[in-house]
Amino acid sequence: MTPAIGVFDSGFGGLTVLRALLERLPGARYSFLGDTARLPYGSKSRRTIARYAAQSARFLVDEQGAEFLVIACNTASALALDAIQDAVSVPVLGVIEPGAEAARAASTSGDVLVIATDATVQSHAYAAACRARGLRALEKACPLLVPLVEEGWTGHPVTDEIVNIYLGELRAEAAARGMRADTLVLGCTHYPLLREVFERSVRPGVKVIDSAESTAQAAARFFPGETHDPGAGHAPEAGPATEIRCFATDSVEKFERLGSRFLGRSVGAVELIDLGG
Amino acid sequence: MTPAIGVFDSGFGGLTVLRALLERLPGARYSFLGDTARLPYGSKSRRTIARYAAQSARFLVDEQGAEFLVIACNTASALALDAIQDAVSVPVLGVIEPGAEAARAASTSGDVLVIATDATVQSHAYAAACRARGLRALEKACPLLVPLVEEGWTGHPVTDEIVNIYLGELRAEAAARGMRADTLVLGCTHYPLLREVFERSVRPGVKVIDSAESTAQAAARFFPGETHDPGAGHAPEAGPATEIRCFATDSVEKFERLGSRFLGRSVGAVELIDLGG
Repeated sequence: MTPAIGVFDSGFGGLTVLRALLERLPGARYSFLGDTARLPYGSKSRRTIARYAAQSARFLVDEQGAEFLVIACNTASALALDAIQDAVSVPVLGVIEPGAEAARAASTSGDVLVIATDATVQSHAYAAACRARGLRALEKACPLLVPLVEEGWTGHPVTDEIVNIYLGELRAEAAARGMRADTLVLGCTHYPLLREVFERSVRPGVKVIDSAESTAQAAARFFPGETHDPGAGHAPEAGPATEIRCFATDSVEKFERLGSRFLGRSVGAVELIDLGG
Repeated sequence: MTPAIGVFDSGFGGLTVLRALLERLPGARYSFLGDTARLPYGSKSRRTIARYAAQSARFLVDEQGAEFLVIACNTASALALDAIQDAVSVPVLGVIEPGAEAARAASTSGDVLVIATDATVQSHAYAAACRARGLRALEKACPLLVPLVEEGWTGHPVTDEIVNIYLGELRAEAAARGMRADTLVLGCTHYPLLREVFERSVRPGVKVIDSAESTAQAAARFFPGETHDPGAGHAPEAGPATEIRCFATDSVEKFERLGSRFLGRSVGAVELIDLGG
């Protein structure tokens, strides 16, 4: 049986998670929903985010038949995972726990840095998930990075400069607390597109954790017969057997234009839906 | 009779317009609504923006008793002025026409530059309003400027650098079209907070037009008995006679924290409302 997996994000950043899922579970059937009419979630309240995310989750399960839900949005994972689990009856996987788990595996010192949106940071969801694993985490909001990625300035010197400012401030605060951080968690699905910038900006020896990749690994554990290890050789091309349908609540044109950068291949035709609101 | 004026924006940038209104019409009673649950409008479609803006306008007129509506949001003025006028029965003033009118008064060459959000630029509302006045306008979207203002980096060297990049690209395109632009219109209510940066970045002799100020002038013409000319001396302090109520659909705390930067004084307690959505 082909598993039906629903992937949800406030925008299209979560396509980096879908990309990682396609490498691990190439045979699944995917429905991706970007709630683009109401993005960004990162600057909204918990109550509002929970309402939007629950509506979106119900669409993927009730109308698209998803049997498994990946919340490919750090803000929704941080603030609305409970609300989503209450709204649907299928297993729900967020990006925070897999990200924290990957940090635990990577860190020797036990001190990790997390960068994310405002709302994710204010929720302290990463700090809590890290603490539960015996890690100490320091979180920082970096509100300019999503707009920089969406502007397409991923290779622009100004982006390097802004990343250096943010990471410099974060390092200074970590040092003031006596932390010896050896791991940086990218706590936003837009950030993998800046991975090279982060690799250039971190101190030597600091590992950069992409929670998209660790989330795909965690998802693959739910489907043991379907998994493919990307390390074992070339990922099978997502051929005709792989079905991907993309939905958005607004700005389908922008989704189609920018989405391919995140997915690493064309997103095809994006279907416009109305969740009311 | 104290006029009741409703001021609407997708966020709190429109408080720069309210600030200019308070200087011109200090005796009016103001209701300001920021539709913060659904911002930014700048990246959304016309249909969605029209629906959100009409709901917001009805709240100000039907529930707050506004007799005059100022749409202090360039995107909503560009894309939804008709929808708002259809939704309510009071006079509605947007920011585009006053901005274009101020550009006509300022420009000698007849060539003007306009910077704004993506959606405002794509609507070409400024170009049309300028063309109707015999001006040639070249528009450019600057999506990083709103996040920079909201991050509070208005005095940061990186902001100067980004403004220089945007204006440099705009000048190059204007030159390629044989334009001799002598006027720059700030087509977004966040941009007045970067006014000094723009003044530093433009070529000598280029005038910077703040559409908040020109919109307040246009509004004052509707209330001839109430106006105060800020040029005639000190603006009267908005004392106990001035009533301002601020409403937001989300993130009241952020509105209160950042809003005072835009209004130039405390916004007081912001009331949370639900427009459904």
